[in-house]
Amino acid sequence: MKIALAQLNYHVGNFPDNSARIIAAILKAKVDGADLVVFSELSVCGYYPNDLLERLEFIREALASIEKIAESCIGIAALVGGPSINPSPKGKMLFNSAFFLQDGAIKSIHSKTLLPTYDVFDEYRHFESNMEFNLIELNGCKIAVTICEDLWYNQKVMSTFSRENLYATSPIEEYCRQNPDLMINLSASPFSYHQERWRKDILIENAVKYKIPIIYVNQVGAQTELVFDGGSVMVDKNGKMVKELAYFSEDFAIVDTLDKELYEIQPATETSEKIYQALVMGISDYFRKSGFRKATLGLSGGIDSALTLVLAVKALGAGNVNVLLMPSQYSSDHSINDAVALADRLGVKYETLPIHEITLAFERTLAETFRNLPSDLTEENIQARVRGTLLMAFSNKFGHILLNTSNKSEAAVGYGTLYGDMNGGLSVLGDLYKTEVYQLSRFINKYEEIIPENSILKPPSAELRPGQKDSDSLPEYELLDAILFQYIDQMRSVQDLILDGFDETIVRKVVALVNRNEYKRFQAPPTLRISSKAFGFGRKMPIVARYPL
Amino acid sequence: MKIALAQLNYHVGNFPDNSARIIAAILKAKVDGADLVVFSELSVCGYYPNDLLERLEFIREALASIEKIAESCIGIAALVGGPSINPSPKGKMLFNSAFFLQDGAIKSIHSKTLLPTYDVFDEYRHFESNMEFNLIELNGCKIAVTICEDLWYNQKVMSTFSRENLYATSPIEEYCRQNPDLMINLSASPFSYHQERWRKDILIENAVKYKIPIIYVNQVGAQTELVFDGGSVMVDKNGKMVKELAYFSEDFAIVDTLDKELYEIQPATETSEKIYQALVMGISDYFRKSGFRKATLGLSGGIDSALTLVLAVKALGAGNVNVLLMPSQYSSDHSINDAVALADRLGVKYETLPIHEITLAFERTLAETFRNLPSDLTEENIQARVRGTLLMAFSNKFGHILLNTSNKSEAAVGYGTLYGDMNGGLSVLGDLYKTEVYQLSRFINKYEEIIPENSILKPPSAELRPGQKDSDSLPEYELLDAILFQYIDQMRSVQDLILDGFDETIVRKVVALVNRNEYKRFQAPPTLRISSKAFGFGRKMPIVARYPL
Repeated sequence: MKIALAQLNYHVGNFPDNSARIIAAILKAKVDGADLVVFSELSVCGYYPNDLLERLEFIREALASIEKIAESCIGIAALVGGPSINPSPKGKMLFNSAFFLQDGAIKSIHSKTLLPTYDVFDEYRHFESNMEFNLIELNGCKIAVTICEDLWYNQKVMSTFSRENLYATSPIEEYCRQNPDLMINLSASPFSYHQERWRKDILIENAVKYKIPIIYVNQVGAQTELVFDGGSVMVDKNGKMVKELAYFSEDFAIVDTLDKELYEIQPATETSEKIYQALVMGISDYFRKSGFRKATLGLSGGIDSALTLVLAVKALGAGNVNVLLMPSQYSSDHSINDAVALADRLGVKYETLPIHEITLAFERTLAETFRNLPSDLTEENIQARVRGTLLMAFSNKFGHILLNTSNKSEAAVGYGTLYGDMNGGLSVLGDLYKTEVYQLSRFINKYEEIIPENSILKPPSAELRPGQKDSDSLPEYELLDAILFQYIDQMRSVQDLILDGFDETIVRKVVALVNRNEYKRFQAPPTLRISSKAFGFGRKMPIVARYPL
Repeated sequence: MKIALAQLNYHVGNFPDNSARIIAAILKAKVDGADLVVFSELSVCGYYPNDLLERLEFIREALASIEKIAESCIGIAALVGGPSINPSPKGKMLFNSAFFLQDGAIKSIHSKTLLPTYDVFDEYRHFESNMEFNLIELNGCKIAVTICEDLWYNQKVMSTFSRENLYATSPIEEYCRQNPDLMINLSASPFSYHQERWRKDILIENAVKYKIPIIYVNQVGAQTELVFDGGSVMVDKNGKMVKELAYFSEDFAIVDTLDKELYEIQPATETSEKIYQALVMGISDYFRKSGFRKATLGLSGGIDSALTLVLAVKALGAGNVNVLLMPSQYSSDHSINDAVALADRLGVKYETLPIHEITLAFERTLAETFRNLPSDLTEENIQARVRGTLLMAFSNKFGHILLNTSNKSEAAVGYGTLYGDMNGGLSVLGDLYKTEVYQLSRFINKYEEIIPENSILKPPSAELRPGQKDSDSLPEYELLDAILFQYIDQMRSVQDLILDGFDETIVRKVVALVNRNEYKRFQAPPTLRISSKAFGFGRKMPIVARYPL
């Protein structure tokens, strides 16, 4: 049997556009002789619609779209993802379902059992867990249809008292008791730099354990913070790769279920390149799906804004990015030179708006109020906020979106000014620690110097007072990032870190900074997620709590 | 049997303080001759700790605290809320439990079955659902222990295809099959202005249906956005009130399980007074629990900042609130006079910082960039951001927290400047529509004019250009708020609203504004919740979606 894998880039709630893409792929698959075409999880509405799923008009439009798509399924069958109504009057209203479309109609509905409700996932908020396990029969082939997390019953459970499984039921086990010939999985599995490996491991593990080929179709494209990397695959019953689709772009392929290990294994893409592609797609989809084309950012001569600019230019084109240089009396000449050099090299228009006159006006306005008080963080914050206001003014006037240039280390310890350099519609680097910012910059400079070497080599500085360096108030980034990664991403405790040999005073200082700055992160822009633990809605922390140490 | 109801104000994660409060109440209950003392849901750690529940050191400290509390249970028993470890190796690591403490030890653990995962609730993110229903026997009395939502099996399900129950299992049904003599419910039920009525209805309905007295102990106090109003009660088996504890303050009472309808029904508190008390507690707990004492806010002469100031003064004391008046050339004299009159009346220190010099410096700095372009929203936003920066400078220099003064109507339609008047550590009025701001102001002025009548009577204006009125760009608030309430709080569709008779053009315009401004609300401060649908984490909307109309 010939099955088409349709890996598409959906727009949440854009039923006309999503339906058109789906119908086009159905027609193409039919022309190419496929018996069945498979789409990704919640394809009709895009993953993830969040509380739009609570709105009846949204559900009605989703269901109407599926009916319409079904009409094009003549002489070919399709599996399309979408919300379905729970037929029982008890429990949540919806299932997260795969609609089996054939002969112009919905033939059966197959729903998701394991509803991820952790990190960035919130599915039990909207869906009831499925407990019916019916196979599809198509051309004599018995097919088990699962949805994303259903494959992940055996996932490793992080940071918990000894656990075997996160869920009590294994839907694969339920299906495999009925001896299906094939398993199909509709997925929407967001990118993190480990995810491709984890995903392949799970697919192979399940194929081998249950002696069943698996066809896996993933969503591609970014939805605000989440980037979906595609990489749909077929593995045979021995866990060998039969087909692998593109990463970070739409793709389409037809496999024969009798195919075996036709696939020539490609060398794995290096982590920096994956992150690069994810961030570029993250920026480009954010703009396209919000109906914007042009970006503004502040270019300081430092590494973070330089890297952000390179990514923005790749995503939007040099003609669609404008940068502002906003020097103060504390800006070094080399900073301005590095910024100009980069803008020129990339062919990006820049304007120079010195902030001195404005900060002076603030000083004069506040002179009486602050009389006899020493200069402190307040004055540094004013500079950052003046720059933030200029960037927003430029964006407002010309209809641009401001890109934020902060990194994860800064977001973690609150080394940034709320309503100043924390401004922006989208945080591009907010899930990269400073050391990862350097790694990605070196990757970009691998074949030619794009980012000025000077921006990479010089000691990081916010340049908000004479001779200031980040290391005046923070540990060196190598050490800081190691502590942050253990505490935030690995959820290890202060005690664990001290036992690991980190200096107790530094650990306590860093952890206190992390906890004290929840209030800042609460108001941070949405952040493109590239790790398995990004700040944002994947890490929900209370603001007024006392954090145990 | 004598049972103490201990209604306490917890601080999330503050185990030493929470434990001390709990132990003190146990000792008091013992002195007063109680057999059992009941605390609220997750009392040992405070409700709700969010992803702190994923940290092992947090769970260990919770469990150690409960062991320590148990030691004080000699000659008295207690029911204390806290997370417990799921003994099964499958499923989520934790239960949301009531620990039955007796003879210095943990005697049994009774866990929550219905895990609310909607609106502001996120419990399935952290907890597994309980399926064991064991009664406690104490002095010959068989007690069923339930936790909060367990009582709410029969809640009305809003805005869904015809549903009977949100859950598949009724824990009360399970318990009542075993003929308990008494039901105890440990609760953490956040305030909204309907909640007290809904809660009493559910208690009475269950008591009558199962012919069982119910003792209900609620948390009191605010945790960032959520305000818990207390109001713990005992109802007898006929659904009659036997005892009702205080609202918006800690309280303690002892009931006898043989007591019947001793209670003299108090007149219901009017809605405005409840909201007033909730907001005052919300401010006061936010400051106390974050370790701050002093607030800053910008006083414009308009109604929103006037009302916010009155609430802040009530919560923190006049000596702890400083206001800034920041007139521009567009500020009317009466605005300045009204602001000064209110500050003087309340005994609050104010400073006047005209913004003209700073906005002029911005204009000059941007003159070349904006050459030949007409003045537009950009220039209005600059004024708002200059004020936002002055307020933050004042707060930074003196260690204050800035209170945000925006209302829900503005937040809904994006009538506010991000990084400008949307600044603040806490939004006080962000869950009150403009018409509700007026209602609350009239309530405050009921016996004497506290808020200048002029601030209430004059047409609302942002005063960002000559003669500007809110009604230039928005429908009148009566109409706007009616549409917003239907669309946001009631989740009704554009079609529904048109069928209701609202003007189609206005409805479409308002709804488009609401949807287009998700990006602004994403970066808004945490907002005190007083309705059953506030902006914030109780309403999770995608940013780049197309919203169906």
